[in-house]
Amino acid sequence: MTGDWAVYGRAIHAPDRVEDLRETLMIVGSDGVIASVETGVSPRDPRLAALRDGDALIEIAGDEVLIPGLVDLHVHAPQFPQLGMALDMPLQDWLQHYTFPLESRYADLGFAEAVYTDLVDTLLAHGTTTALYFATIHLPATQRLAEICLGKGQRAFVGRVGMDHPEQCPDFYRDVSAEVAIAETRALIAHIRALPGNDAALVRPIITPRFVPACTDALLDGLGALAAETGCAVQTHCSESDWEHAHVQDRCGCSDTVALDRAGLLRRGSVLAHANFISDADAGLIRERGAAVAHCPLSNIYFAGAVFPLRRMQALGLHIGLGSDIAGGPSASLFEAARQAVAVSRLLESGTDARKPPAERGQPGARIDAPTAFRLATAGGGEALDLPIGLFRPGYAFDALLLRANLPDGNLRVAANEAADRLMEKIVMTAGRGDIAHVWVGGRLVKSR
Amino acid sequence: MTGDWAVYGRAIHAPDRVEDLRETLMIVGSDGVIASVETGVSPRDPRLAALRDGDALIEIAGDEVLIPGLVDLHVHAPQFPQLGMALDMPLQDWLQHYTFPLESRYADLGFAEAVYTDLVDTLLAHGTTTALYFATIHLPATQRLAEICLGKGQRAFVGRVGMDHPEQCPDFYRDVSAEVAIAETRALIAHIRALPGNDAALVRPIITPRFVPACTDALLDGLGALAAETGCAVQTHCSESDWEHAHVQDRCGCSDTVALDRAGLLRRGSVLAHANFISDADAGLIRERGAAVAHCPLSNIYFAGAVFPLRRMQALGLHIGLGSDIAGGPSASLFEAARQAVAVSRLLESGTDARKPPAERGQPGARIDAPTAFRLATAGGGEALDLPIGLFRPGYAFDALLLRANLPDGNLRVAANEAADRLMEKIVMTAGRGDIAHVWVGGRLVKSR
Repeated sequence: MTGDWAVYGRAIHAPDRVEDLRETLMIVGSDGVIASVETGVSPRDPRLAALRDGDALIEIAGDEVLIPGLVDLHVHAPQFPQLGMALDMPLQDWLQHYTFPLESRYADLGFAEAVYTDLVDTLLAHGTTTALYFATIHLPATQRLAEICLGKGQRAFVGRVGMDHPEQCPDFYRDVSAEVAIAETRALIAHIRALPGNDAALVRPIITPRFVPACTDALLDGLGALAAETGCAVQTHCSESDWEHAHVQDRCGCSDTVALDRAGLLRRGSVLAHANFISDADAGLIRERGAAVAHCPLSNIYFAGAVFPLRRMQALGLHIGLGSDIAGGPSASLFEAARQAVAVSRLLESGTDARKPPAERGQPGARIDAPTAFRLATAGGGEALDLPIGLFRPGYAFDALLLRANLPDGNLRVAANEAADRLMEKIVMTAGRGDIAHVWVGGRLVKSR
Repeated sequence: MTGDWAVYGRAIHAPDRVEDLRETLMIVGSDGVIASVETGVSPRDPRLAALRDGDALIEIAGDEVLIPGLVDLHVHAPQFPQLGMALDMPLQDWLQHYTFPLESRYADLGFAEAVYTDLVDTLLAHGTTTALYFATIHLPATQRLAEICLGKGQRAFVGRVGMDHPEQCPDFYRDVSAEVAIAETRALIAHIRALPGNDAALVRPIITPRFVPACTDALLDGLGALAAETGCAVQTHCSESDWEHAHVQDRCGCSDTVALDRAGLLRRGSVLAHANFISDADAGLIRERGAAVAHCPLSNIYFAGAVFPLRRMQALGLHIGLGSDIAGGPSASLFEAARQAVAVSRLLESGTDARKPPAERGQPGARIDAPTAFRLATAGGGEALDLPIGLFRPGYAFDALLLRANLPDGNLRVAANEAADRLMEKIVMTAGRGDIAHVWVGGRLVKSR
């Protein structure tokens, strides 16, 4: 469709709590931005007939509901082939023995093209309308990932990974110097910003030091300066595991958060993956800088050794969204990340050891509910990135999923006229790609089943 | 196919650890039982050509692998419509406010027929070749569930739920008396055993006291006597939550396990769901009786308040399989139960509270690996039920799934010639219904995509 068009029917989203948008007429401009949202519009409203006549109306059926697209704040694109593999190893061994050898293969542009095409298609089919990608140290393959995202219409932040520390990065997969890493990051930024068809900045570059242990101070400082110079967003890991947290403390004499801040990497729109072991003071610094946390409940189970204290960090005012952490997390579905965010918060609250009395087992008050997880996966991601996505509001991009319930090969089972809070809970707890009928990004239909 | 037929190619299963059955020729008799399993058969073996000529050979392609069918030891069939709903409530409130009102609707046979048909189709599509069903107190609907399983070819144990305790069961959904509950259970046993086409006992009755709190002593004792008389298997809940565990202790002056044993309900083939809070002495009694535990990692997250200490219970010699616990568990996929079994074992091992030092956080040694979870979902279930299912061995039923990797709309991504232990890990961590090409039960093809 060209020009303005509209959707009509039931939508739900989570600006704060659940908002049930019934009989909603949403006008979408030709720029893919929501122009207006009006609820309680009668099915006999003459505007609907006019839109229908103009072939400019998508009508949401009784078993269907529109939700915002999902925002995945943490994806390691090159790790997709090892999804679900070797999660029994400690993080540093998993990196050295599996992940770095796999990532080094992206020097081969043909291999990169095949994996990245499959990955972007897969994530769109799972409803991920925005993704933050760590690529590898290879500039050509990373450029190709950005082009694939743009071609398929996925909103994306694509980063060339910087990692030059000789003690933590193997000889076969390491930046030759901080200078080269910085220069290639600069080249990626220019390349993505100049991509034909990317005028609306659907795909953006993102500055991506792997994590403090993998980077020399020169690289961290250089990438921080580049962020200030270019205004690019930043992504990295922070205080993921006991090992990483302690390693940075030893090397830098401060917390991971403080080390990143000293290098100028903690900025509005910076996304820190994990942050499981940050202190309240770290959290205060992150909030002050306007940076955000990508909560990755799936991979944390295997590599963190503890649960991210989400409720406590929300209370401290942090911006928080969700990450699949492919392939440390074994699922490409952000719905899965949302349910695991609920699940691990329950295990943090209850504790896990049945031999202890209930009062000594867990952390009272740590649980989140399903609507909170839904918010993290949508509006929370938008807030983290400082982008108008994740809500059905005028001025927000029309990034949306049409869910169709009660399909024989879907998971979502919904009763007629299900109450909004219970509907949202069922979506978080059960929805998957089989329930997604259509996916739009910036008003463009990018997937249909 | 009638008469003997065969499959040829790669299969994996887990008799104890991973067994990689390469170039395997498996002959299946017309009775649906595996007659022989021979590995290392050359693709040029003349028997293959003969079978091919007789249209009696299924050939497993390079991207495919055969695994045993999944055994779900704990399904509440009537709760399927509330999958993923109200899991924020404590168990006893969830039962009173959501579950019992829903279950009471199965007095309506039309409603039952629609839900049970959807459920059995869904479970077969997810690869569940054997299921243990709690139905409701309604005999006609429960009989209908058994007939649907038989018609669709799912191996099943179907139980009419007994629940007559006036303090724990609401007026609108309670057995009128222990006598009626016992008589209707007896009637169900006779009905299922006499079903036309059920000569091989594909579908079996199972004696099903809901749980001790919901049953009077008269009902528990009566059902225990009926088990001894009829030789039927038994299923119930045991020590699921702090609340249930303490309630039984208060009422009976003993543990849940001992109370069940006193009533004669702890027998070879009895399946106790949950058992999160059993003592080592309880475990010893369960082992002595040859009974088994249905580990339900998904619902335990929401209702148990602790993690089932699987490794410790394995070390004590218990038979253990997996349960989805629909709808306390929000997924119909036993693959999902298997991955959650791994996940929660990791959180039991590591603990969850990042503010504690690692050494004080968790329970060292509690983790299980993916092959162990695979075994629980297949051979473990067979062992629990004392049935020859869950392995590719002569004399075992041909209950099997053909997984097809690398499908655009599947989750499983497998490299050429992936090592068996890593392949099994990927299956546990990522597989779902989209990866299942065919499902057989007792040699009958019951689902194909």
